[in-house]
Amino acid sequence: MSYHILKNQNIVSFVQNIPKIREYFADERLISKEIGDGNLNFVFLVQSEKNPKKALIVKQAVPYLRCAGESFPLSRDRMSFEIRALLSYEKLTPSFVPKIYHEDEEMSLVVMEYLGEHIIFRLGLMECNYYENFSEHISTFLAYNLFHTSSLHLNSYEKRQMMDSFNKNIELCKLTEDFVFTFAYMEHETNFIDENALEDAKELFSKMEFRKNILKLKYIFMTNADTLLHGDLHTGSIMVNEKETFVIDPEFAFFGPFGFDIGALIANLISSYISHFYRSGDEKYQEWILKNIKEIYEKFEEKFLKLWDAQKKSSLITSNFIDEKTLDEYKKDFMQDIFCQSVGFAGCKMARRVFGIAGVEEIRGLEDLEKRADANKKALKIGIKLIENYENIKNQKELIKIIKEFS
Amino acid sequence: MSYHILKNQNIVSFVQNIPKIREYFADERLISKEIGDGNLNFVFLVQSEKNPKKALIVKQAVPYLRCAGESFPLSRDRMSFEIRALLSYEKLTPSFVPKIYHEDEEMSLVVMEYLGEHIIFRLGLMECNYYENFSEHISTFLAYNLFHTSSLHLNSYEKRQMMDSFNKNIELCKLTEDFVFTFAYMEHETNFIDENALEDAKELFSKMEFRKNILKLKYIFMTNADTLLHGDLHTGSIMVNEKETFVIDPEFAFFGPFGFDIGALIANLISSYISHFYRSGDEKYQEWILKNIKEIYEKFEEKFLKLWDAQKKSSLITSNFIDEKTLDEYKKDFMQDIFCQSVGFAGCKMARRVFGIAGVEEIRGLEDLEKRADANKKALKIGIKLIENYENIKNQKELIKIIKEFS
Repeated sequence: MSYHILKNQNIVSFVQNIPKIREYFADERLISKEIGDGNLNFVFLVQSEKNPKKALIVKQAVPYLRCAGESFPLSRDRMSFEIRALLSYEKLTPSFVPKIYHEDEEMSLVVMEYLGEHIIFRLGLMECNYYENFSEHISTFLAYNLFHTSSLHLNSYEKRQMMDSFNKNIELCKLTEDFVFTFAYMEHETNFIDENALEDAKELFSKMEFRKNILKLKYIFMTNADTLLHGDLHTGSIMVNEKETFVIDPEFAFFGPFGFDIGALIANLISSYISHFYRSGDEKYQEWILKNIKEIYEKFEEKFLKLWDAQKKSSLITSNFIDEKTLDEYKKDFMQDIFCQSVGFAGCKMARRVFGIAGVEEIRGLEDLEKRADANKKALKIGIKLIENYENIKNQKELIKIIKEFS
Repeated sequence: MSYHILKNQNIVSFVQNIPKIREYFADERLISKEIGDGNLNFVFLVQSEKNPKKALIVKQAVPYLRCAGESFPLSRDRMSFEIRALLSYEKLTPSFVPKIYHEDEEMSLVVMEYLGEHIIFRLGLMECNYYENFSEHISTFLAYNLFHTSSLHLNSYEKRQMMDSFNKNIELCKLTEDFVFTFAYMEHETNFIDENALEDAKELFSKMEFRKNILKLKYIFMTNADTLLHGDLHTGSIMVNEKETFVIDPEFAFFGPFGFDIGALIANLISSYISHFYRSGDEKYQEWILKNIKEIYEKFEEKFLKLWDAQKKSSLITSNFIDEKTLDEYKKDFMQDIFCQSVGFAGCKMARRVFGIAGVEEIRGLEDLEKRADANKKALKIGIKLIENYENIKNQKELIKIIKEFS
């Protein structure tokens, strides 16, 4: 269908023309409303009038930044990458992404399962909710997707074919290059700096050695095509309840370095950990967050290696090329690199939230300026420490120690 | 023009239909002959009958491996990548590639300058010819092309756009993965092992630690998209005379790691160095080869850094992001990585020539089996040493020392 922007009054008739969706609703009367509060896209909820729990989401990209208006153009191609990533996730880890009912790249539109009984993970963390399955779920999501779209699994034909579908996600990669790896560490008009944090910002902006490592990490981000990444896996891109975990919004998807998604997730958990010194003061909950950081990586590594062990040959490793013992050593080095990289990216993802354009709600949302500055100080210290030492922080224990020591 | 295979009898009329070529020949009577002795493509020479120095080359790819026949299919897309790389080289370093008169991707065909007064560099080296401009020329070729197609120069849009033109060169990348990084180090039907070298092969094939580093380098080859590479820059892909240097045959072109082309060139110069113990015995010439290895890298580094210094900002390094002193340190680390990588790839490119499917003429062409085995032993020792230690060989002096010590 050729592109046109849907309005709420067209949504019901639009979805009723899609056989799979008509079947889902069994020809019941439908109502729709706009519910999107995101920055980028329009989101509508379509429900059965008599059974409102029967509901789907219609998400459409417009050729501009929704929150800023038509004067901020942003290619709606982003929805094509989101659709492609969702389809790959659905194939590899169907339990952890919303079910897709319809996708249309020309319309920059996707219709998917409504997660009415889940909340954004970031908010759940702010409310001190426990999600006992989270580390189990997200580690499976990470291990299965990162492994199966890498050269450890795909053959070279499949990998380069698949890369072709994401290579053009230039605009959103550029946003990351600018906002995660550049502007937040220097004087820049897009930054957000409270009056009482000017000194801290000045200190950060003078750290040149630190920026050297930022450049190293940025270069890895720009050139290492390890695997298909979500590209923006913060705690706002995950929806949860006590039983389930869903990853959403992969419009930043592209082929990049193994550690990037893991790092993003760890960074956001650390931010949440820090925020609770000023929000709940709930030490037990903070310990639970730290336990999750540890478990996510531990379980990710275990599952990733299990998949790798089961992969008897690949484009990288021909059968009989290397004996078991040496292969295990190779895998150990390989996983060590992923860990170090994850730590480095976690550092960037934390540090950029402090003065950069996009803060994290749990810290930037602190209304007391003193508390906000203190929380930011902690986040900054940890971020800098991780960035400056990412090549030498060898395991979760060392990482957790740093988090505790600097907060 | 839709694809059809040209025969010698069609060549003259074919080129006469191309205005730019008709103009070149000024409507003189033309003759043509097939001159190709390559493995992959058909190559014809078209000359003015009365002035045979006025001549062009017509090169066409067929959808199979020319030397093996139609039963060995190989996509003729390879010519599209060759054309695209030649055009990029022509833009960046016009003095070092044959002038392109016509290119037609649909016909998998290119018409270019005839290098009638130049010989293949490999043969020139076998004949102990001196090319005093070579290191100057090839270092410029390497520095200009590797720099200008990397993220140090192109912005992220340009880079990913350009990558798109090469991302599908899967078949030839796969050949490198198999023949440079895999089969030559293990029992494989494609290998070439003399009776008197069976023990050496057996020893090589048992080296598991060594294969671990092969896997590291292979993984870098498969996933690091630093820059546009020639992809097969051995001494047979270069034509020279005392004055000029031309790089040809970039059908393996793709976006890969900085050190790969440099490594290929160094490896082939080392092979030539070794061969002269058994061919000319000309120590002075051998010293000249070693001097060239040293100079190529030195001059490459100098020119690459000069280009980088002149590049005041890039997608990687925003202006004012980092002070001069720290940037210099970053560049130093960056260049060190390129050197180490080059050494590792040089090791692979040498070691794979020993028992792999494709030997180098100067060694595999030694008819005396004892000499051939001895030369191979030296090549293998150096190759293994470079691969096993590539992360710790820090400069040209150390590299040259190893070459001398093990040969």
